[in-house]
Amino acid sequence: MSNPLEFLHHYVEAVEKELAQYPLPEKPASLYDPQRYILKIGGKRIRPVFTLLSCGLCGGNYKNALPAALATELLHNFTLMHDDIMDQAQSRRGEPAVHIKWNLSTAILAGDGLFTQSMLSLQNLPDSVNHKKISGIFLQAVNHVCEGQALDMEFETREEVSSEEYLEMISGKTGALISASMEMGGIVAGADQKTLLLLRELGGALGYAFQIQDDWLDVVADPDKFGKKVAGDIVEGKKTFLMTLLLESCNKVEKMWLLHCLNKKPLDNASVNKVIALYKNYGILETTELRIDGYYSRAEKILEKFGESEFKRDLNKLIKTLKTREY
Amino acid sequence: MSNPLEFLHHYVEAVEKELAQYPLPEKPASLYDPQRYILKIGGKRIRPVFTLLSCGLCGGNYKNALPAALATELLHNFTLMHDDIMDQAQSRRGEPAVHIKWNLSTAILAGDGLFTQSMLSLQNLPDSVNHKKISGIFLQAVNHVCEGQALDMEFETREEVSSEEYLEMISGKTGALISASMEMGGIVAGADQKTLLLLRELGGALGYAFQIQDDWLDVVADPDKFGKKVAGDIVEGKKTFLMTLLLESCNKVEKMWLLHCLNKKPLDNASVNKVIALYKNYGILETTELRIDGYYSRAEKILEKFGESEFKRDLNKLIKTLKTREY
Repeated sequence: MSNPLEFLHHYVEAVEKELAQYPLPEKPASLYDPQRYILKIGGKRIRPVFTLLSCGLCGGNYKNALPAALATELLHNFTLMHDDIMDQAQSRRGEPAVHIKWNLSTAILAGDGLFTQSMLSLQNLPDSVNHKKISGIFLQAVNHVCEGQALDMEFETREEVSSEEYLEMISGKTGALISASMEMGGIVAGADQKTLLLLRELGGALGYAFQIQDDWLDVVADPDKFGKKVAGDIVEGKKTFLMTLLLESCNKVEKMWLLHCLNKKPLDNASVNKVIALYKNYGILETTELRIDGYYSRAEKILEKFGESEFKRDLNKLIKTLKTREY
Repeated sequence: MSNPLEFLHHYVEAVEKELAQYPLPEKPASLYDPQRYILKIGGKRIRPVFTLLSCGLCGGNYKNALPAALATELLHNFTLMHDDIMDQAQSRRGEPAVHIKWNLSTAILAGDGLFTQSMLSLQNLPDSVNHKKISGIFLQAVNHVCEGQALDMEFETREEVSSEEYLEMISGKTGALISASMEMGGIVAGADQKTLLLLRELGGALGYAFQIQDDWLDVVADPDKFGKKVAGDIVEGKKTFLMTLLLESCNKVEKMWLLHCLNKKPLDNASVNKVIALYKNYGILETTELRIDGYYSRAEKILEKFGESEFKRDLNKLIKTLKTREY
């Protein structure tokens, strides 16, 4: 299968090169080996690419933004390391999670260290960049990510979650770092406050679109292309965007049944099929699809306000690729 | 019992006031409640006081350094939250540790958030302060603390640790943040590079002195004043500075016996007494005391290089108080 993001390969390569050159010491091995490990097992490097594109979009030299791009990728990998502990995930990108390959303490500490490295990476930005401003935006985003993760954990033990609360949660957990990735690119380019706000909004819209699309694909994806079990979220009784919408739309009897299911997950086959039938009954799939399209359109509309450039074309292409993704 | 650090009360009060005013939101409660909790259960606030004193020592207005002082205290509390998980500590300052009062995931996430807040606190420094420089020094120290903690964990499962390796470990785990606390005070005061290096050395010497003194007091403290069980480190088979010195000094038979003991801790009463007898036999207590005095003297000598001021007098008094502490 060809890589639909192939047109971004020179940005991804620039990020990989910067990552490979990042001076993580050899010792203590228990601190740095897990950091090297999680960075090596990959990922799409989408956040750092957003930083580079957004710097170029604002007329800056995208190479100047590499340390900021790296910061977003290091930070993202730190959150994965700690999230995998909190979610008791066994694997990450097909490899054992850090707390499984090593142990709990090592994963906590290596994560703390990786967070530190992400901030240290900002030290490598050109002196012309306002350091206080860029690190302030980055840190506010990190705090927002923490808030999103806290809400996500709180929602697990709460009976009901509204779709509005769900959106608040993902705006932190997914949106904040994408917004910051774009805004930081703008800061490196010396963009004005108005432009920075546009970039933040653009990133936020993409974050919503991407996360809700994840929830939607869980139900509608082609099993041959999806790469994981379709309806896995339903089986696990996850409070996805679709589920929060359904709970707000269905009748009392259905709601009682749903809450009962979410309470005693995993759901059996018959229950999963019934949930899907309810999604169809109440038009949840269409409503969700409209919502995803709405967020992507908002992102495209914001992008229109920027002057023509190869970066704008690449960002447009990236949005179109994300929009039509099937996995 | 009167507080021997009473003469510093107006600095401590300034820190407490700044802490109380620090704008931690109410929600999500699972993120911010544990942060408020650990900050509330106290501590001596010694690191932020070092920052304020060191700012004054360099001719700055110590109040300008309050956001940097706060950063060191927030950071310290973040490390406590995560260390308590790694050490499986049940309590902190007589209260349940965060991961006991809440749970593992909450303690990891609240710690991450507190680390973020510590960095965000630096945003409140006056614009005249070089933000890139002060955050660089802070973050290098945090990374050094992570390295120290990693070494500490590695040492637990290693058979032998040299006294030199032990010193390397505590220079990270204890010294780095004290050094940074002092250096950051200097930066706020606009001190030159030479002065900043002096402050770093001064903090480093105090860090060594304080940590080795902790190890020493474990053996020699007056049980009525110590507040915890004397020789607790020996019972637990900890590789303290004294133990690493003893392993380097004793004969082969004694060494084999010691390594055997460290391997199958906890030690019984007879073994504890034998270890103390070996400490006396090989002059470990005297050697250690000389070492502690040496580090405190080095700190005092560095302090002499600064001009007279109330801050210098207070720092001198603080060093003398630490030197003669019995618990």
